Amino acid sequence: MIKDDECLDDLQNGLFIIQKKNGFKFGIDAVLLSDFAKETRSKKTLDLCTGTGIVPLLLSAKTNTPKIFGLEIQEEIAQMAQRSVEHNKLEDRISIECGDLKTAVSIYGRDSFDKITCNPPYMKCGSGNQNDIDTKSISRHEVMCTVDDVINVSAKLLIPKGRFFMIHRPNRLVDIMCAMRKYKIEPKRMRFVHPSYDKVPNMVLIEGMRDGGEELKLLPPLYVYNQDGTYSDEIHKIYGN
Amino acid sequence: MIKDDECLDDLQNGLFIIQKKNGFKFGIDAVLLSDFAKETRSKKTLDLCTGTGIVPLLLSAKTNTPKIFGLEIQEEIAQMAQRSVEHNKLEDRISIECGDLKTAVSIYGRDSFDKITCNPPYMKCGSGNQNDIDTKSISRHEVMCTVDDVINVSAKLLIPKGRFFMIHRPNRLVDIMCAMRKYKIEPKRMRFVHPSYDKVPNMVLIEGMRDGGEELKLLPPLYVYNQDGTYSDEIHKIYGN
Repeated sequence: MIKDDECLDDLQNGLFIIQKKNGFKFGIDAVLLSDFAKETRSKKTLDLCTGTGIVPLLLSAKTNTPKIFGLEIQEEIAQMAQRSVEHNKLEDRISIECGDLKTAVSIYGRDSFDKITCNPPYMKCGSGNQNDIDTKSISRHEVMCTVDDVINVSAKLLIPKGRFFMIHRPNRLVDIMCAMRKYKIEPKRMRFVHPSYDKVPNMVLIEGMRDGGEELKLLPPLYVYNQDGTYSDEIHKIYGN
Repeated sequence: MIKDDECLDDLQNGLFIIQKKNGFKFGIDAVLLSDFAKETRSKKTLDLCTGTGIVPLLLSAKTNTPKIFGLEIQEEIAQMAQRSVEHNKLEDRISIECGDLKTAVSIYGRDSFDKITCNPPYMKCGSGNQNDIDTKSISRHEVMCTVDDVINVSAKLLIPKGRFFMIHRPNRLVDIMCAMRKYKIEPKRMRFVHPSYDKVPNMVLIEGMRDGGEELKLLPPLYVYNQDGTYSDEIHKIYGN
């Protein structure tokens, strides 16, 4: 079930995940996103750009959601996610599909989910240190989908008043907010993540509601590290449950 | 020069401002905005919603800008600003006009300024505790102009690559960013202001550039108070120069 270039990593919550030894590994972003999204009840959740399935796996542990779907465009990565689901015996709760999110409506149908999560590629094509198109590059750059694509399709897949949760880079905030309003997923809650209290935020958590009213609420900042370089209490708590 | 219901307040930088004893007084917002906007060189600056002229007065002290204009819609308040300019003998550098910013192009002409500042009314009409339409209400609520109006007219008044500086509430961020992109004043720098490091930001400083490229940079957070309730070092520094 686990290939030579893969490893089985312990998620410290009774679950395991298959990842490439030398490939893109899930980061703190997926953990923060799952934690941010866990409070809202859901009967049917979809995770877009699911990669090796980290967000569905974490949500299965953090919530009672009976059905969690994960969509990943890269065949090899989607198969790894599927094998992780089987390894954890979660086939009844988690379903992985391989497909392009731009065609997700034909896969799942309109108005199918009450919650969508997404930890998408952060960087615009042509920005940053973009290697040749490989799996790492597809995970990091908007090669296969843009933030506009993600929000556009989410607006179709969500039921009215359904919730959208995303983590992204603060320097993409204008693109994100303009796309959310354009596709009528109104930003409702936002939380900046800072490496420490005196540092520029390097991630932002955003919650939107399909057809929601205009009312954005900012949450207190989330600091990852204390001044002495240890994890903050909140990060310990997030990793702990 | 100073009426019975007014007082002359010391700005602690050699300048004085005339304010109503029981009216809307300038707050920390105007001080933070002036400090945020001071770094960029300018030959001709316009302050919209100038009120009693606090931002032009502070910018005259903090910068070498030879000509600073202030536009205020309320006749009585604009006259107070004018009298403050005269009291400080700044008639050569600061010009106050009374007028509606929606007609500002006919007052100043297109492409007239390399810098525009604005500390506009924060609250949407109908939100908050809105009193009858009086001068305080006009200063706080979008009775006479909306954030869309401010950005729309600024895009016309600014020269290409001219800079726009605004302070506002974080809960209006979607409105602000969507309007800025709509009118082609691209958000370039953003800084959140928090009462203290563990609190939700309650103000946001935004710099945009007319016809600027898409590249938003977040700055480290600005904390107003230390944990013991005293002003932070940075606030002392901002008030000190």
